[in-house]
Formats: sequence, C-alpha cells, structure tokens
Amino acid sequence: MEKHALKRLIRVASAAEPADLLIRNCRIVNVFTHRVKEGDIAICDGVIAGIGRYPDGQRVYDAGGRYALPGLIDSHIHIESSFLTPEQFGRVAVPHGTTTVIADPHEIVNVCGTMGLDYMLRAAERTALDVRYMIPSCVPCTEWEDSGAVVRAEQMRAYARHPGVGGIGEMMDSVGVLSGDDVVLDKLIMASEERIPVDGHAPSLDGSSLMGYLAAGIRTDHECGSIHQMRERLDGGMYVQLRYGSACRELPMLLEGLDEYAARRCLLCSDDRQSVDLLTHGDIDDLLRVCVCCGVDPITAVQMATLNAAECYGLTDRGAIAPHRRADIVLADDLSDFHITAVWIGGELVAEDGRYLLPLTREDPGPVANSMHVADFSPERLRLRLTSDRVHVIDVRPDTVVTGCGIARIDRDENGTLLYHALDDVARISVIERHHHTGKVANALIRGYGIRRGAIALTVGHDSHNILVVGVSEDEMAFAVEQLIDQRGGIVVTLDHTVLECLPLPIAGLMSDCPAEQVRDRLHRVERCAIEQLGVREALDPIVTLCFMSLPVIPELKLTDRGLFDVTHQRFLSIEAEEE
Amino acid sequence: MEKHALKRLIRVASAAEPADLLIRNCRIVNVFTHRVKEGDIAICDGVIAGIGRYPDGQRVYDAGGRYALPGLIDSHIHIESSFLTPEQFGRVAVPHGTTTVIADPHEIVNVCGTMGLDYMLRAAERTALDVRYMIPSCVPCTEWEDSGAVVRAEQMRAYARHPGVGGIGEMMDSVGVLSGDDVVLDKLIMASEERIPVDGHAPSLDGSSLMGYLAAGIRTDHECGSIHQMRERLDGGMYVQLRYGSACRELPMLLEGLDEYAARRCLLCSDDRQSVDLLTHGDIDDLLRVCVCCGVDPITAVQMATLNAAECYGLTDRGAIAPHRRADIVLADDLSDFHITAVWIGGELVAEDGRYLLPLTREDPGPVANSMHVADFSPERLRLRLTSDRVHVIDVRPDTVVTGCGIARIDRDENGTLLYHALDDVARISVIERHHHTGKVANALIRGYGIRRGAIALTVGHDSHNILVVGVSEDEMAFAVEQLIDQRGGIVVTLDHTVLECLPLPIAGLMSDCPAEQVRDRLHRVERCAIEQLGVREALDPIVTLCFMSLPVIPELKLTDRGLFDVTHQRFLSIEAEEE
Repeated sequence: MEKHALKRLIRVASAAEPADLLIRNCRIVNVFTHRVKEGDIAICDGVIAGIGRYPDGQRVYDAGGRYALPGLIDSHIHIESSFLTPEQFGRVAVPHGTTTVIADPHEIVNVCGTMGLDYMLRAAERTALDVRYMIPSCVPCTEWEDSGAVVRAEQMRAYARHPGVGGIGEMMDSVGVLSGDDVVLDKLIMASEERIPVDGHAPSLDGSSLMGYLAAGIRTDHECGSIHQMRERLDGGMYVQLRYGSACRELPMLLEGLDEYAARRCLLCSDDRQSVDLLTHGDIDDLLRVCVCCGVDPITAVQMATLNAAECYGLTDRGAIAPHRRADIVLADDLSDFHITAVWIGGELVAEDGRYLLPLTREDPGPVANSMHVADFSPERLRLRLTSDRVHVIDVRPDTVVTGCGIARIDRDENGTLLYHALDDVARISVIERHHHTGKVANALIRGYGIRRGAIALTVGHDSHNILVVGVSEDEMAFAVEQLIDQRGGIVVTLDHTVLECLPLPIAGLMSDCPAEQVRDRLHRVERCAIEQLGVREALDPIVTLCFMSLPVIPELKLTDRGLFDVTHQRFLSIEAEEE
Repeated sequence: MEKHALKRLIRVASAAEPADLLIRNCRIVNVFTHRVKEGDIAICDGVIAGIGRYPDGQRVYDAGGRYALPGLIDSHIHIESSFLTPEQFGRVAVPHGTTTVIADPHEIVNVCGTMGLDYMLRAAERTALDVRYMIPSCVPCTEWEDSGAVVRAEQMRAYARHPGVGGIGEMMDSVGVLSGDDVVLDKLIMASEERIPVDGHAPSLDGSSLMGYLAAGIRTDHECGSIHQMRERLDGGMYVQLRYGSACRELPMLLEGLDEYAARRCLLCSDDRQSVDLLTHGDIDDLLRVCVCCGVDPITAVQMATLNAAECYGLTDRGAIAPHRRADIVLADDLSDFHITAVWIGGELVAEDGRYLLPLTREDPGPVANSMHVADFSPERLRLRLTSDRVHVIDVRPDTVVTGCGIARIDRDENGTLLYHALDDVARISVIERHHHTGKVANALIRGYGIRRGAIALTVGHDSHNILVVGVSEDEMAFAVEQLIDQRGGIVVTLDHTVLECLPLPIAGLMSDCPAEQVRDRLHRVERCAIEQLGVREALDPIVTLCFMSLPVIPELKLTDRGLFDVTHQRFLSIEAEEE
C-alpha cells in the first residue's frame, strides 16, 4: 500500500474523511466474536476502513438492515469439473456470494502442463472472483497412464510466488509420500522452502500411515469418510474440508462431528461443481443452507466459509468484516436461506440480485484450445479379438465411482469379436491416448452401463483425460471418436453414424467457451439422449460415470490408455480371465 | 529441510524406523480438538514425527503418564524488565515450560539503537529458549525526551527477515498513527511490504479512533482495561493478549469476558516480569494456574498459551503436539497446578525438575556494556533555585504508574533552595541525559515518595532510560549519580556519601550480567534499604515507581531530561506554579 493510501484509509476509518463507499444500515456478522451488530461499513480503495457509525460516504449503499457477511470462500475446487472457464464460473458463482476460491487446476495441467496453468491464471484475471490456484502436485497422477504432461518440483517452483498462486494442490500420491519417492519429496521440500501450504487428499489413511502423511507437512484433507477419520485428522493438526459438491457430499454426515473446537479447523468446499448445480442450487451459499439445516449455528457456518479458510491459506487480508481487510462483502436477507442480494469484491459492487454486474470478457485460450494430439486413429485400433469366453469386465455400480472387477461369460464370433447381448449388458470400452501422438489404445469390456446401441465418446477422463469411448460396435465407437476429435474434445453421443447430441469442450478438451446456461442445457440433452436413445441405465449419471472409468487410483478395475488396471493389486490385467 | 531428513521423518512417523527420541506413556493434550489421549510422541531431528503408539526409539523417555503440553509461548515480553540477560532469562523461564517468547527489546534499542538489537539477537542464540524479537517501533518513544537512538523504517527493514525477528514491536504512538505521521506510516508500510505482523499498544482507544488504529494494520493489544475494550478489539479482528506480569495484571478481570469464540483470539503474556516473580511464581505456567483458578478450562488455557500465539505470529511450526511441528514439549504433573517436570525444545531435553540442563554461556555485550555518556556532570547541575513558594509537584500514587500534577507550598532558603520538611514529603527529583553527552539535566519536585534522607539513582527510566535521581539534598543526589556512572548503570542507594546497596546493570544500564538469584537478592536489598534506611513509603515499590517517573506518555506529570512534562496537555511546565 502506498503511504498516501494508508493515510487516507486511516482518516476514513477514524471518520476524518468520507469513505469512498459507505454500506449503511447493515447487520454486520462478526466471525471473531459471533456478535451481530447494526452499523455501517466504511470502505476506502477497496479495503474496509472501519465498521460502526459513519456520517457519510462519497457513495452510499443502503443495505436496508440486511446481514453483511464476509465474502465466501470455497476452500477446494477444480473449476474444470464445471466444464466452465474461470470467467464463466465466476460469473455464476459470484452472485451467490463466493468471492474467493482455492482452485486446483489439476485437470488442465494434466492435459496441457504449465501452459494450462498459465491459461487459468490469465483467465482468472478476467473475473471478479479471486481465484487462488494451488499448483497441481500430481502430474501425471499415476504411472499407469499417459497424461499430457509431467510437471516436476522445479517447474512448480517457478509459480510458487505468483500472486495468483496459493500453494501446492492436493497430494494424491500418499504411497509416494510414505515410500519417500524422490519426485514427490522434491515437491514437498520445494513447498517448504517457498513457505507455501500443501493440500492433502488422504482417503482412508489412518494410524501410522496418516502420521507419515502428516509428517510430510500436508495440512488439509477433503476426503474424510467418517467422523472418526475427521477427528483423527483434526487431532493431527489438519484442516478438514467438509465437502458438498456435485460428486461427493459428506458435509451433512461430518457435521455430526462438529463441536466448538472442530468449528475452528473445518472449512467448506465443493471439490467439483457442475453447472446445473451451480445454476440451480448455488455455490457456497448452498453449503451454508445445508449447515443450518443440519442444526449448525449460522455464524459458525459462515465462519467456516470465511475466516477458517482465510487462516488455513494464510490469506490474512480477508475472511472477516474488519478494518484493513479487503472489502469482500456479501449481503444476505437472513441467516437461514442466505439469499444473497449484493456482493462486493475489493470494494466493487460485482453482483446484485443474482446478476453479475461486470462486463464479461473471454481470455483467448491460445495453445490450450488445441489439445487433441491423436496418432493414426482408425477403426481398426478399436478391434478386440477375444481368445476366451471368460473375461474380466469393469462392473459399473450406481452412486459410486468405485467399480467392481467382474468376470463374465460372453459370446464371440469366429474372429473373437464380442457378440453383444442386451441381457448380459456387457459392452465395449476403449481409451485412446490423445496428448502426444503415442498411438496407444486400450480396449476392454464394461458391464452394467446399459448402453445398447450407438456410442458415447468424451475427453474428460480423470485424471489423464485421454479419449474414452463406449458402445457395442467398433465402427460406431470409431465414428464417435472421429467426431470428438473434429470438435476438439468434449462429449459426443452418436447413433448410426450421426451425432445426436454433443457438448464441445474445446479448451483442453475439458472446458466449454459457452455460457453456463448453454453448458448446462447441452449436458442435460447429452445425458437424456444417452439414457433415452442409447439405453444407458437411468440409475447412473451417464457422463460422470464415464469420467471416472480411467482413474487408476479408485478401486477396483479401470481402463487407462495402457490397458485394464487392477487398482487393488496395482497391476495390469488381461481381458481374458483364467478358467476356474 | 533436506530430503534425506524429510524421508527419515516420514519413515519414523509411519513406524518404519525407530524415532531418535520416543516420549512414551504420555497423556497428550491436543489443542485442536481438546482431547487428551494416552500415547507416545515420536521425535526425529527435533521435529515431532507422529503421535500414537510406537514400538521403539533410539532413546526412550518414560513420561510416567504425565500430561504432555505444547511448549508455552509468552506472546509479549520485554526481557530487559527482568534486569536479566536473555541467557539468564531463558535459564529461569525454560524450566517453567516457556519455550518461545515474543520479545520486544524496546528498552535496549531506545538506549543503544540497533546495536542493542544486535546484542539481544546474539545473546538469544545462547539460550535454549526461542526468542522471536519484534523490532521496536517507537525509538525514540516520544519527542519530549532524549533517547539513545533514533531508529527509522529503513533501519528496521534490515532486520525484517532475520530468522530471530518476528515482526514490528508495539506501536505506542497511536497519535502518530491517527494523524498519519510520515515517520510512523513508513514503519507500517515497511511491515506490510515485508509481510511481518505489527504489535499494538492501544490503551483506552475506542470508537473511530480504534478503527483508525486498526485500519493501519495493527493486530494485537495487551493493554485492554475492561471487558468492553477487549470485546471491541476482538470485534475488530485483533488478537488480545491477556496480561499478568510483575507490573500489570488484567488477566483475571479479562477472563470474565472469555467465551468459546474469544478463546481463539486471546493469548497470554507477561509484558514485564521481574526476577523475583520468575523465581517465586514461575512464568507462563503461572498464568495457566491463574486461568484455571478463574474457572477457565485448562486445555483452553493451554491453547491460548500455545496454538493461539503461534497462529497470531505465523509460527506454523509450533503451538501444538502434532506431526511436522517442532518438538517443543512440556510434561506437567496435572492440569491444575501445572507443575512442570520436563521440557524439550526442538527435541532436546533442556530442563528437568526445575533445573536448566544446558551449559550456561554468556554473550559478550561488547559496545552495549558501556552506555553511560554523560557530559560535564557536577553537583551544580542539580542546583534548583526556586523563585516561588508555590510549585508544581509530581504526585506519587501507590499501585499505579499514573502520577498526579499537584501544587504545593514549600519552604526555601534565601537562595531559593528547597528546605525539606518530612511532613510535606516534597523531595527533589532530577533526570540527567546519559546517551549522547548533551549535558541536559532537568530538576523538579516529587511528593508522596517518602524519601527523607540519602538518595536513589538509577538508569532504568522508561522509555529513554536516562539517569533519574531522587533525594532531599543536591550533594547526596550528585554523589549517587557519580556512583551510578562509575558502576556503569543500574541502581544505587546512598546515604551520607556511602553506597548502602546497589544493583549494577552494566548492559546498557538495563541488564545485569549476574544470575537471576543474585539479581533478585540485590534488588530486594535495594528495595528494603530504600524503605528502611531512606524512608521511602512502604506502600510503594521503590524502584518500579521511579522507573516510570520519566515516561511522558503516562499521565499526568512526568520529568524527562528536557523538563517537567504535563502529559495531559502535552506541554512542558515550569516548576513555579502561577499564584491563584
């Protein structure tokens, strides 16, 4: 801060000079003392100068007695999972009161490397939302697949002091941490040297394994599956992120374990949020509603979404309505519905009555708009010639991304080609490497997905985001892949060599450049079409289910571009099963 | 941390390798969840690797079921006020469980400038106690006196990243802050640029003045005089330091205002602690006892003295017994008496059963050992020739450092010299500049101190620490001053040109180089002698009373080397009072 600015801030605070903006007549929610006080908020150069009673401001906004909350913070999100650009995500999230997100661009960096991070940093400058990126720590995510990039500690270090960077993203490789893998440890040491926090991801770790993970300096976890796990992590000094997004929703269950002590160490996060949820239910405001519904004191809920997150990430300039902090302020009608009527970020009114007020501009995605680098694709590459009737199949289960490692008896023709029978519900699934023209293609079988005809292909496949395609006919699947390559990624649903529906995601094959409403509508049509035209089981989310079919860190059986992977035993498996 | 060290830490945590040290059989106090769990603490390279059950350690310490607490943190202290060197202070404080102090070397820097800070930093390396210095922000303290040094923002900046420095010391000049004084603002901006915290000192500030002070980015206050003030500061986002030292003890009163929310924003501090208190009552362990006596939950008390302080000062490496944090650990018999039986700092056993275990070495004070730079002193310089019988006197009051601005009728001889009458109890007081041979001497009158004969002279006089002398005879006072100069500062009590008792403080005229027990005993003899031989009122602390006679920021009337200062009206006053 320049001296003249500090001087003015002090003068405004001490009522010696009118504020730039005076938000008058608020019920100010204090997250330090949990008191609610009627008063005004005096703002100067985007910073809160003082709270109390002030005579005047150059501009005055009458809050009409509404509650003033600190700007809400999503403590962990992958923006890419909304299929929206940061600009579009901000446009929709900000009117819901979200003013800061701690975002891990894990997906795009796994596709495009640091070019992806560069793009996300540039794009974030075009939204009022303050996006603090955590540098993805697991690129590639595993050694069992081909991602688009390899990012090591020294490349990460180059971003450590970038003003848009808040730390190191979720360390998923707990095996690497515990075994002292050099590549992993270099990243942790870099973070320690640069004094930036490291986010965790520690599903089911406990006892001395959890201790080993904590000893590495990892400080957060958003993967608590039980109150016991939550307490164990809190005991160990971790901040626990209570998650309620489009994919996973442990928040209500974990709130049972929230006491006055845990209330200071828990944060709120979405992890993933799809545009339909964002547009229908809102963002962190929705989590506040869930908290209150579950009986949490509303100011405790707000505190978790503001002060706690700010403290966890060292953002001492926000998280509360107090002097010398950024004027990130949200007005809400009440403390139960949390209907947000106005949002200021850095003192600027950026949303009112659900509308985003800033002009929307679009960052040119540049090189990340062309992420389809597939070698020599032809229908022949999908050819699967089975040498046994007894095969391993990926068993799809509703409501979970965990799959089963099943065994099925199938019919095949004289060439070994699968003969599809609707009753068996065993279909074809393939993964095609798309980043470096390696030409790798892996073919396998999937059971329980329900697809009877046509094909679905997509470029969103955690975490390497190669092309994944399902169908019952190699020809149709190849057509879908070709169409997908033509549209530079996204999702296509085809039938009889015709594209029925599609959602192009030209930015890294992960994000649309369209408005959130269009993305929502097209995705909805894609999903309905998959179910209604192709026969995908109604009980499944047709797209999310496929997005996780390639993720070799989630049990039991997955398909990467290198083949069928048995996650439980950490080894590749042939499709043909041994005879009993 | 080196990679091999991190690798080992993780292996020890996950029980793949024995710890360097295993503290076995503890009741581990968890300041995050407030749970107490029986278990072991595994330590590796001075860092806590894990807590739980561990099979073995290269060394094993059996805690015998005692409570293991995180090392205690004094969040605000002036070590000089103990008259002890950092080495000696550490020797006595550490066995009481204090492992970190946030120390403001305000006194020595006002005498010796940054040379004083250099000495304190060097000396702190010779104690196990981790001393984090706050760079004094007010040197000189006021413009109404001559201190030994002037330290501006740019000199302070040179220390901002020193590993022994934690931020900027208490900003006492609230008037300068609120008026936007350039010299003051430069320091605040420097702190903001260097991202280091600024401590506060805001007695009685409220309303928009408090807002102005907070807007400047100042984050702590240890001067709360009421629960109302405490709440106002907590509301504003300040950390409140609950004080219980040798001089001021608001802790029990303020604990009435401690609720579950304030419990996260309050810290414990002593501000000043004399050796007699340190040796008799202890250090922060004593504050824990006071808290528990006042009905505070013992783990909340521990949390205030550990985690809260660590969070406030950004010391993420300590404040809790948790993996990846420094092994600063204290064993206590129980959670009521907090009798400390063992202390580890950075994994090293540094105290046991009240004994400090490390060899005691002494930092050479070098240039700060010679701080007496008095020009042309002679008895004549103390000559006071009164031109009126009606005079202003400094009225001493018991139990407070606030003085009255009194008016007295005195007797004087034909030369205008005061004729002392025991019944009036008006004595002589003088301040002699001692830093830069300026030759400045100011003479005045003091009432209610009780001195009847002899003289007391000392070099500890907040905050400029010039020589202060009281007595009833100019000759005797001059003798005392000469003796004080000869002993290079400290305290002398003389009678009939004989030194009755003395406490030499050769280090900057502020600190002894003797053990704490000797300092305590000599100070005790000085005090008794002042009362018993010289007649100083029993109700007063004879030395502390004098130490604050020169401090021109405490009302109402004080004497600096420039003259009698009316603090209330911020102006110098002649001794002669106007006739009514």
